[in-house]
Amino acid sequence: MTRAFNFCAGPASLPTDVLKQAQEQLLDWNGHGLSIMEMSHRSKEFVSVATEAEQDFRDLLSISDDYAVLFLQGGATAQFAAIPLNLSAQGERVDYVNTGIWSKKAIAEAKRYADVNVIASAEGNNFSQVPAQAELASSSNAAYLHYTPNETIGGLEFDYVPEASAPLVADLSSSILSRPLDVSKFGLIYAGAQKNIGPAGLTMVIVRKDLLGKSREDIPTCMNYKVAADNGSMYNTPPTMAWYLSGLVFKWIKAQGGLGAMEALNRRKSEKLYAAIDGSDFYNNPIALNSRSWMNVPFTLGDDALNPKFLSQGEERGLLNLAGHRSVGGMRASIYNAVPEAAVDALVDFMGEFERDNG
Amino acid sequence: MTRAFNFCAGPASLPTDVLKQAQEQLLDWNGHGLSIMEMSHRSKEFVSVATEAEQDFRDLLSISDDYAVLFLQGGATAQFAAIPLNLSAQGERVDYVNTGIWSKKAIAEAKRYADVNVIASAEGNNFSQVPAQAELASSSNAAYLHYTPNETIGGLEFDYVPEASAPLVADLSSSILSRPLDVSKFGLIYAGAQKNIGPAGLTMVIVRKDLLGKSREDIPTCMNYKVAADNGSMYNTPPTMAWYLSGLVFKWIKAQGGLGAMEALNRRKSEKLYAAIDGSDFYNNPIALNSRSWMNVPFTLGDDALNPKFLSQGEERGLLNLAGHRSVGGMRASIYNAVPEAAVDALVDFMGEFERDNG
Repeated sequence: MTRAFNFCAGPASLPTDVLKQAQEQLLDWNGHGLSIMEMSHRSKEFVSVATEAEQDFRDLLSISDDYAVLFLQGGATAQFAAIPLNLSAQGERVDYVNTGIWSKKAIAEAKRYADVNVIASAEGNNFSQVPAQAELASSSNAAYLHYTPNETIGGLEFDYVPEASAPLVADLSSSILSRPLDVSKFGLIYAGAQKNIGPAGLTMVIVRKDLLGKSREDIPTCMNYKVAADNGSMYNTPPTMAWYLSGLVFKWIKAQGGLGAMEALNRRKSEKLYAAIDGSDFYNNPIALNSRSWMNVPFTLGDDALNPKFLSQGEERGLLNLAGHRSVGGMRASIYNAVPEAAVDALVDFMGEFERDNG
Repeated sequence: MTRAFNFCAGPASLPTDVLKQAQEQLLDWNGHGLSIMEMSHRSKEFVSVATEAEQDFRDLLSISDDYAVLFLQGGATAQFAAIPLNLSAQGERVDYVNTGIWSKKAIAEAKRYADVNVIASAEGNNFSQVPAQAELASSSNAAYLHYTPNETIGGLEFDYVPEASAPLVADLSSSILSRPLDVSKFGLIYAGAQKNIGPAGLTMVIVRKDLLGKSREDIPTCMNYKVAADNGSMYNTPPTMAWYLSGLVFKWIKAQGGLGAMEALNRRKSEKLYAAIDGSDFYNNPIALNSRSWMNVPFTLGDDALNPKFLSQGEERGLLNLAGHRSVGGMRASIYNAVPEAAVDALVDFMGEFERDNG
């Protein structure tokens, strides 16, 4: 068995050590004679796994007891509706920042439920730079301010946490756990697991407890944060396998040294890759220096006609899933926590050789 | 490694052969150098897995092209809201049959969105017998008729498919694929995967295509069946690992001989277990003969004080998760497709010995 270097944007690379542990336990979890997938979510064994995963997640992000941590389903897309339905009244003003495709999706769904005010947009600079704090023209009466700290497709990342009088809501799907974060600045954080946490099918929500219990009358119960919090995310059967795997990932991050170590690793990885792009006349990344994503690095070749050759030669070397999003084209290397530094080194080496041969 | 006999009601037993195959492929799916969990849901590799799973599922149930098959999230609980939001207008009449705890949950959520008419209830017989066709006092103007063919907790199962002028909607979470079914009699079938299909976190929906496109304006997009159908269940990232595992289960069922073979197996298993109960003065099952579940067999001991001893001695023999639902007490043996006949034989043997020693 050879493990390739996997630059997929999501569902994305998982730590090999985590997969090995899951593999060992797959038919027989801790000598119990059954898979973790085959256990009741209410069994003491699974509850211990679930509780430990939540505690490890809280430890990593230093989440205080003022916040509930929820393990939900439906991905960020479900949250695009759940957020206005939980946090705003019908037709109430809500603020959104538009920094790309994921922001736009969040905005489109919120418009179906609330009076959306797009208080800043990077559309004017073709999504190459995040708006500065001074450009955020917050409403005086917004129920919350929503933004997308990292745009997975555009490769645009905020280098600061916005200040707002309204509760701050963030889609951290593609950058959660990539470095330390001051959770106390946020009203709500959500993240689909399939990028930096675990397999697809699990969504993490961190919500300040004083924001619970404000949902609309007609919200589907499965989307009601208070119901989820009151039931320990077990109002309905949770995705137990995904929860378990995410717990293994949290332990793996702790074993690596926590989010400080992740930050150092991710800084090195992204600096190496951007240096390779910037040091060449052949590769290009269009994002302003202060807005470059540590997690998703899009780049173009000097000649788009070379894209298929780049991808196929990369694949031959075990560098997988480098094609850019279908809406953008070019290349994209997603270098989440589980993508090792050796993968970036191998990519940089290959990029250099490819440029020499084709540039 | 020893695999126990697992009678859990859900998340439930999976075929050992399926888990072995998943284990082999967990770090390296078909020599691609990555786990199926680490692949984009839009990759040609995952799309082939997804397409094959749908086709195998369609083959097993002989589902015609008049129906869409959806791979969703959120379990039956999400469907309790999604069904009225997709299939009825605000305040429109909808018919429900009440046969136990899961029916009641479906009814409670539907009441938040529609004018629910409970057209028949087994409450009068303490949920020991399903209503007969003649007792179903359908509304003349209902948008649909909802029922729960098998009540997982009560162990009550319909021995017929109701006839109705309105589209028939069924929560088949705990009995889908347990025997052949004439899907053409239904408008919509839904099933959480974690009993007879695969791991928790996946929900199957089979919906007649002429029922698509009738959803309410304010439905969360992630719940809109038409959006899911138009996007091949990939409007948002699906639970890829659960989809893959379910596909392996579908192939396993095919290899066993399909639903005809499952029916023969499940009939034998349930007959053996009910015979052991009925042939004893010590064990009791309260359900009328025509309404007994093939999948979930609740039973009580002659003396409830013996329950802990029964459970612990069972566990010592590798007979796991026999405790009844916390709302019911007593015992419950869930004997889904993946529970082998040998498990039932071992349980029946143990029950006999326990009765001799304690009866």
